[in-house]
Amino acid sequence: MADLVLREDGDHIARLVLNSPGNYNALSVEMIAALTDELERIGGDDHIRVVVIAATGKAFCAGHDLKQMQVLRGDGDEGRAAFPELFDSCARMMQMIPALPQPVIAEVQGVATAAGCQLVASCDMAVASDSARFGVNGVNIGLFCSTPMVALTRAIPPKAAFEMLVTGEFIDAARALELGLVNRIATPEALTDTTMQLAATIAAKLPAAIRLGKRAFHDQLRLGLADAYASAGEAMCRNILLPDTAEGMAAFLEKRRPAWT
Amino acid sequence: MADLVLREDGDHIARLVLNSPGNYNALSVEMIAALTDELERIGGDDHIRVVVIAATGKAFCAGHDLKQMQVLRGDGDEGRAAFPELFDSCARMMQMIPALPQPVIAEVQGVATAAGCQLVASCDMAVASDSARFGVNGVNIGLFCSTPMVALTRAIPPKAAFEMLVTGEFIDAARALELGLVNRIATPEALTDTTMQLAATIAAKLPAAIRLGKRAFHDQLRLGLADAYASAGEAMCRNILLPDTAEGMAAFLEKRRPAWT
Amino acid sequence: MADLVLREDGDHIARLVLNSPGNYNALSVEMIAALTDELERIGGDDHIRVVVIAATGKAFCAGHDLKQMQVLRGDGDEGRAAFPELFDSCARMMQMIPALPQPVIAEVQGVATAAGCQLVASCDMAVASDSARFGVNGVNIGLFCSTPMVALTRAIPPKAAFEMLVTGEFIDAARALELGLVNRIATPEALTDTTMQLAATIAAKLPAAIRLGKRAFHDQLRLGLADAYASAGEAMCRNILLPDTAEGMAAFLEKRRPAWT
Repeated sequence: MADLVLREDGDHIARLVLNSPGNYNALSVEMIAALTDELERIGGDDHIRVVVIAATGKAFCAGHDLKQMQVLRGDGDEGRAAFPELFDSCARMMQMIPALPQPVIAEVQGVATAAGCQLVASCDMAVASDSARFGVNGVNIGLFCSTPMVALTRAIPPKAAFEMLVTGEFIDAARALELGLVNRIATPEALTDTTMQLAATIAAKLPAAIRLGKRAFHDQLRLGLADAYASAGEAMCRNILLPDTAEGMAAFLEKRRPAWT
Repeated sequence: MADLVLREDGDHIARLVLNSPGNYNALSVEMIAALTDELERIGGDDHIRVVVIAATGKAFCAGHDLKQMQVLRGDGDEGRAAFPELFDSCARMMQMIPALPQPVIAEVQGVATAAGCQLVASCDMAVASDSARFGVNGVNIGLFCSTPMVALTRAIPPKAAFEMLVTGEFIDAARALELGLVNRIATPEALTDTTMQLAATIAAKLPAAIRLGKRAFHDQLRLGLADAYASAGEAMCRNILLPDTAEGMAAFLEKRRPAWT
Repeated sequence: MADLVLREDGDHIARLVLNSPGNYNALSVEMIAALTDELERIGGDDHIRVVVIAATGKAFCAGHDLKQMQVLRGDGDEGRAAFPELFDSCARMMQMIPALPQPVIAEVQGVATAAGCQLVASCDMAVASDSARFGVNGVNIGLFCSTPMVALTRAIPPKAAFEMLVTGEFIDAARALELGLVNRIATPEALTDTTMQLAATIAAKLPAAIRLGKRAFHDQLRLGLADAYASAGEAMCRNILLPDTAEGMAAFLEKRRPAWT
């Protein structure tokens, strides 16, 4: 099972690679478990500052594993027990991404479909190959992408999300950039370099500030203005009292590099 | 009154056509009632899978009927009873659109003004002629478009919405596409074909999945992440247990067309 | 202290000019106090219909005054008392902008950094020089821009905001327009004219309608659909019962200019 997700660490960056090209990196029960395990491990690893989720093969991720789901359906109860468990474990994994202390970047080299598109939308940022495509096309087989929709409608404007969901049609990388689903586009050749450079930029910042900031980001996102300011103001105060931040501010004023611990 | 809104059904698509070109399809008391009636009827009609709201004449819809409103104002009480009733009935009609089981597409052939722009913003999707224009220009006569604003600020970014509301200036179709107010643009000649093709694409999907999905879309839109996943997860489970969805998934795996009931 | 913010009134427009180019118009304790004072005064001034916030020098606003903050840090308690007070007063000032009865336009002639970028995001609208740049780069010195983030994430899409916050990288005016952070771009030479023309357009509307509308805008922004319509519907009713609005509607129907009081 460990092989389903490869992990390569380097320079404080954990690179997770979905490694099941045979089924287009489908989010099978095992793949969800493997990703959950890795995210849990990374969440407790102070050494890691940034996470990249990449993939091998032609597809980034094709969403749920339909073949396996049809087996679950044959459980005797038509899947009444297994399906909720499957969707719950997937939704829990998706919600681990914004809850993770480290920023998470999707590196999208191919098609991202249904829950695969949800995975991209759930990441804090995304870099896409100019040949990548994105779709929430479950509707084509009669299974509306209701859970992928949660992440998608929080990343792109509502009318564009609605269209993707009811037509099942794909958008290309340029349109995904325009809509806010991805942050940057690169040629297939430059994709990994572009992503890892973005990761390295973030890994070079003060880790405590990034962790505190990422949490503050998600904490305030859907609050009213006054509550959001109360929440973010507390984060600001905790941040500025860090000795490393005092050093960062002093270094800036003295036009030198900060000597962070 | 039936003539105010023409209804043409075909291939599971209900096409409502605002048919009061003389007053630019203004949302008079009668027009609101006619639209409300049609939407109510369609909501209970399982045969209909998609709704298109189109219009005759030069304008898509010019918003409220000012002439009629000035008559209401002369009611003795200066309209104190009639205006709230009018705005309520209009807001109720607008809210019927996201609440309708079927996706609703606006087909915008001309100018969409004030509550006419709200009608476009309230639809799940919109297709516009490249010569269409959009404005919330009530401010020009001293009546800020407060209720149109509700739909507008839920479709486009806040600073752009604010500008339209306080300047009363119009945006063209290209800008409306950029902002997310419309989904697609077509030449005036191709507008109806483009819209009906989009409608047909959706009408060809499994109707139960679209209905379930549209409801799930609006149910989760403004919830926190965990609540949104709980809500969408339930929809997902109900959806996958449909016999037609089981058949859709089987057909996909067997590379054949689904035999939906 | 009065010199920190210059105020020039003309044609119902209050033009506030940040006037501390030596420290890039930093939001020092004194600058925040000066802005707060001016906004308070303007809020009570029925004569003023629109506010412009502009700046002198190369930068629009460089955010908090780091030099002063390091002095506060030396207070004995490491700033434990002073920092919360500073951030609170800044957040209160930022929240005065949407709460102000008059629309507020940022006129951004240079770089807008950290809390300076927050000031732009907090304004109802913004016009930028094509050479202006925007960043929330506190992360570079170990101080994540948590409070600027509150305004930023309410103006632009989440993934784009996240990227700016964790990379500290700047965006140019064209990208700011695309993302919804600014409304219009002008050459440096045309910037003030473009901004003042936008201000004049708004100042020419019925002031009571603009005031009522701006309040309604912010009141409904984060409510559910039904609550938003209830809130905006009340504003609509109050608005239409104004004698000047009756006159505006009558004038429109009679194809003449309204004779507003």
